[in-house]
Amino acid sequence: MNLDPTKMKDWQIAEAAEEHMKTVYQLGEELGLDKEELLPYGHYVAKIDYKKVLERLKDRPDGKYIDVTAITPTPLGEGKSTCAVGLMEGLGKRGKNVVGALRQPSGGPTFNIKGSAAGGGLAQVIPLSKFSLGLTGDINAIMNSHNLAMVALTARMQHEANYTDEQLAQRGLKRLNVHPKKVEFKWIIDYCAQSLRNIIIGLGGKMDGFTMQSGFNIAVSSEIMAILAVAKDLKDLRERIGKIVLAYDKQDNPITTEDLEVAGAMTAWMVEAMNPNLMQTIEGQPCLIHAGPFANIAIGQSSVIADLVGLKLGDYLVTESGFGADIGFEKFWNLKCRFSGLKPHCAVVVATIRALKCHGGAPIPRPGRPMPEEYNKENVEWVEKGCANLIHHIETVKKAGINPVVCINAFYTDTKDEIAAVRRLCEQAGARVAVSEHWLKGGEGALEFADAVIEACEEENEFKFLYDLDMPLRERIEKITREVYGGDGVVYTPEAEAKAKAMEQDPELSKLGTCMVKTHLSLSDDPNKKGVPKGWKLLVRDILTYKGAGFVVPVAGAISLMPGTGSDPAYRRIDVDVETGKVKGLF
Amino acid sequence: MNLDPTKMKDWQIAEAAEEHMKTVYQLGEELGLDKEELLPYGHYVAKIDYKKVLERLKDRPDGKYIDVTAITPTPLGEGKSTCAVGLMEGLGKRGKNVVGALRQPSGGPTFNIKGSAAGGGLAQVIPLSKFSLGLTGDINAIMNSHNLAMVALTARMQHEANYTDEQLAQRGLKRLNVHPKKVEFKWIIDYCAQSLRNIIIGLGGKMDGFTMQSGFNIAVSSEIMAILAVAKDLKDLRERIGKIVLAYDKQDNPITTEDLEVAGAMTAWMVEAMNPNLMQTIEGQPCLIHAGPFANIAIGQSSVIADLVGLKLGDYLVTESGFGADIGFEKFWNLKCRFSGLKPHCAVVVATIRALKCHGGAPIPRPGRPMPEEYNKENVEWVEKGCANLIHHIETVKKAGINPVVCINAFYTDTKDEIAAVRRLCEQAGARVAVSEHWLKGGEGALEFADAVIEACEEENEFKFLYDLDMPLRERIEKITREVYGGDGVVYTPEAEAKAKAMEQDPELSKLGTCMVKTHLSLSDDPNKKGVPKGWKLLVRDILTYKGAGFVVPVAGAISLMPGTGSDPAYRRIDVDVETGKVKGLF
Repeated sequence: MNLDPTKMKDWQIAEAAEEHMKTVYQLGEELGLDKEELLPYGHYVAKIDYKKVLERLKDRPDGKYIDVTAITPTPLGEGKSTCAVGLMEGLGKRGKNVVGALRQPSGGPTFNIKGSAAGGGLAQVIPLSKFSLGLTGDINAIMNSHNLAMVALTARMQHEANYTDEQLAQRGLKRLNVHPKKVEFKWIIDYCAQSLRNIIIGLGGKMDGFTMQSGFNIAVSSEIMAILAVAKDLKDLRERIGKIVLAYDKQDNPITTEDLEVAGAMTAWMVEAMNPNLMQTIEGQPCLIHAGPFANIAIGQSSVIADLVGLKLGDYLVTESGFGADIGFEKFWNLKCRFSGLKPHCAVVVATIRALKCHGGAPIPRPGRPMPEEYNKENVEWVEKGCANLIHHIETVKKAGINPVVCINAFYTDTKDEIAAVRRLCEQAGARVAVSEHWLKGGEGALEFADAVIEACEEENEFKFLYDLDMPLRERIEKITREVYGGDGVVYTPEAEAKAKAMEQDPELSKLGTCMVKTHLSLSDDPNKKGVPKGWKLLVRDILTYKGAGFVVPVAGAISLMPGTGSDPAYRRIDVDVETGKVKGLF
Repeated sequence: MNLDPTKMKDWQIAEAAEEHMKTVYQLGEELGLDKEELLPYGHYVAKIDYKKVLERLKDRPDGKYIDVTAITPTPLGEGKSTCAVGLMEGLGKRGKNVVGALRQPSGGPTFNIKGSAAGGGLAQVIPLSKFSLGLTGDINAIMNSHNLAMVALTARMQHEANYTDEQLAQRGLKRLNVHPKKVEFKWIIDYCAQSLRNIIIGLGGKMDGFTMQSGFNIAVSSEIMAILAVAKDLKDLRERIGKIVLAYDKQDNPITTEDLEVAGAMTAWMVEAMNPNLMQTIEGQPCLIHAGPFANIAIGQSSVIADLVGLKLGDYLVTESGFGADIGFEKFWNLKCRFSGLKPHCAVVVATIRALKCHGGAPIPRPGRPMPEEYNKENVEWVEKGCANLIHHIETVKKAGINPVVCINAFYTDTKDEIAAVRRLCEQAGARVAVSEHWLKGGEGALEFADAVIEACEEENEFKFLYDLDMPLRERIEKITREVYGGDGVVYTPEAEAKAKAMEQDPELSKLGTCMVKTHLSLSDDPNKKGVPKGWKLLVRDILTYKGAGFVVPVAGAISLMPGTGSDPAYRRIDVDVETGKVKGLF
């Protein structure tokens, strides 16, 4: 294969690589899977029966556990997914038995502006069209499971409006008295469909539902997705689904899926979705793709189950968390690892020289506009200044008791002196540093990176949480703000403070995880502040509860659960070769 | 296996049978499929690469082609799907190489009142939970494909409202000027979600979409589903998707998916859905499950592709059409066979003694009420009188030039004299008659039935259409009404007549197929008239056009494209065994 990322689009590279990829049967064999454990979906993707694998390998020691995170993101993109895939390829090239674990992308971004999320250049997961177009159907299962709850809720509201208590009793139903202004659940669809963000439903006659405000969120923001990412097994999933609060009644009591007798049927949709999906990098390393929850109201990373399975199958498991280390790694650390009981060995902080310049004072590039000239010229000073942000994230990783590795995701405009500056400053801060050229060269370009990670994993480390679950909510938020975000404290709106106090007293809620909502574009709560903002306090506006997922969510930033489709979306350039069935133009 | 349908629920029988079912690899081997042609989805379901199979077997003669239809349905249910599966089992028991082709069920009925549609008793398709819960994802693919068109349309309407012509031009867009009151397309969801039937979308600010009326239909009523059922290959599908009319502009010009540059991306979702799904009866006969379009605005039967493939793989291909022979068989005959170019050999008309009594004058049973006493007592007179309806459908089959077989779907209250009466009257009308006990006994109970079908297939027959495509629309409707429904002619509302005249002059529309909408509960257009209504004319209220599917649809009855979820829906009784992952309570 002669694949040149400087001349080919990502989907063209994927298409060429797919001509020579391994069958999923071969991948399964290389992983030592029993035939019963590998559930093929076509010849190039499979699901893995997690339960059988975990049972068979329960006595095998886990592999080394590596999380890939990043500096505070800039509009340039740091290439975190690409680095994660590059690391898999680099470890593979070094002869290591490596497994990856990444998120499944949403159809929304794929067909809108952002495109797919399979990596890029020579560091991609294939087959691309399977990856981008729903894979084995897990997101569709979530959609069906989630929307069934809304069907049940809205049909029940209609029937309660139309029937007397006696008529309801004949059907074995007791009036739930849902307050139509207190329906917190919405419908989902896996697109950026701004037209469905705010809607009125149930127009028409008395058989046409219940008239009220409603709306659709993007599927991957569903609480079912949040649950899929953290559930340890089917029993855990079933219990969590039953705890989802859909609405409140007229006395403010929660109405759950269990109250609507729909939790079992919702779980029925999810049985197969519990099994992680097996794919491969373009160099043939196995990669598990499983779950893709939002990084604000959920953990923003692939599933606990995929990590449990991958650590049994591989000597190294590479996974990734969404956004920068203040958001993604913090949730990996204090939420995901708490749910899974797993202990990571190393975290990679991805940076690019261009992004460091941006944090160091270079003009902020705007999407769709030409790149400012400054980025094409050497500027060691900006790079050095920008390293403050990177070093802040290194410190965060160190607070978790594990070893940081900085990966400089190479770009052709990088200069030797710029790279030397990063190396010097980060090594002073106690991190290994590697430059990686996986985008251009695949695993061959990621050997230094792989070696740094291998070393970091061998070194002593002692993983520890930032807080215990018996720490009261406001103390936790204070601790996260000071130690992870670098803020000077927390202020609350009166509503948020009242909620926090009530939660601290609630025996059930006080034991849930804390899942912060904050902009990922700054360490602070102001997306315009780059570098390491000083002298600010976090403003908590509200606190949400997701009983099924098992979080309370302090909201210190905007949450958009339904993005919009732009005026020049990706679907304009996607088509099918009707002779071969190949999908063209995905990116 | 000792499976007793008088003591076990359908899902319990399925679960027991699944303990011993063939793997899909074995099924593929028995069908002589190459390894590349069989795309497993887990170990018990597969997709078949239709293109490879049709190419490899292009010179093999087709098998015998059998359609299963029924008398005019009654609230009792005649058990058409069960008879189709029973026939597969009976032919299998006779050592024949038989393949089935059935529709995929919708999630709407499965979770609402009707339950699944995999047959019943000892004549079922398994694995049941795969069958009932989305199978390999074809309906989800349709949902994603269809809703992408709505995302594109509504986003475009927003952007056109927000941007000047110049700003649009910068994005390579020309103003389409969609008339918001002329948006004919709706969103889809695969549930009975009456609350989404009539909605207002796009509330909020100028980035929150375009405010207008809209709504959701059930997924299986989508034009994409109609297309999947009739497309002969991917090229055909791509072209049809591009012809779908979503809306009209302010000058009344149609706006298609191609105008929105979304037809290619919509097709991308459908590439895998083109391959039929392979399952099995509980006695191990292969059964293709593919497409499940509505029986009013579409053909109401499984796909053309599944039949093309099944006829190459089997010596007998058993398929089924929705509703009674006036609707289902008429569409099989004049639409599906015209699209496919295939010629059937035999059509089975399913009847039950109880339903014949109902057509003969017995009190009409009401769902949810106790069965009238009359049905438990012998009444040869009612049966004889009810046979008029059955004989009418036999005549319809004979008009197609093929051989009718009556299947009496046995029930324990049937008496010898009642059965003898049916036998005598139908044989006089030129049909073979068989009593079948597949529900109770599986293939062993369907031997007489299978033998009658084998004989009917051997006999001379000469398939011919009821009308040619150059017959003007109103003449076609007249002919269908007189010859298939037994009416005295057709009357039109002024609007429908104007549309019909215009269509007859339109070179494109005049060549499309005719897909009638009429109640299935009577041969006439009045659902309350049982037996063979005389002295009535068909009232055509409107004529719809589906350019993608390739039909015009004369509307002589109510069309509900979004059913409602009742007050005691099936989901209340569905749950998952969290230890085994088995879904309980589907029916």
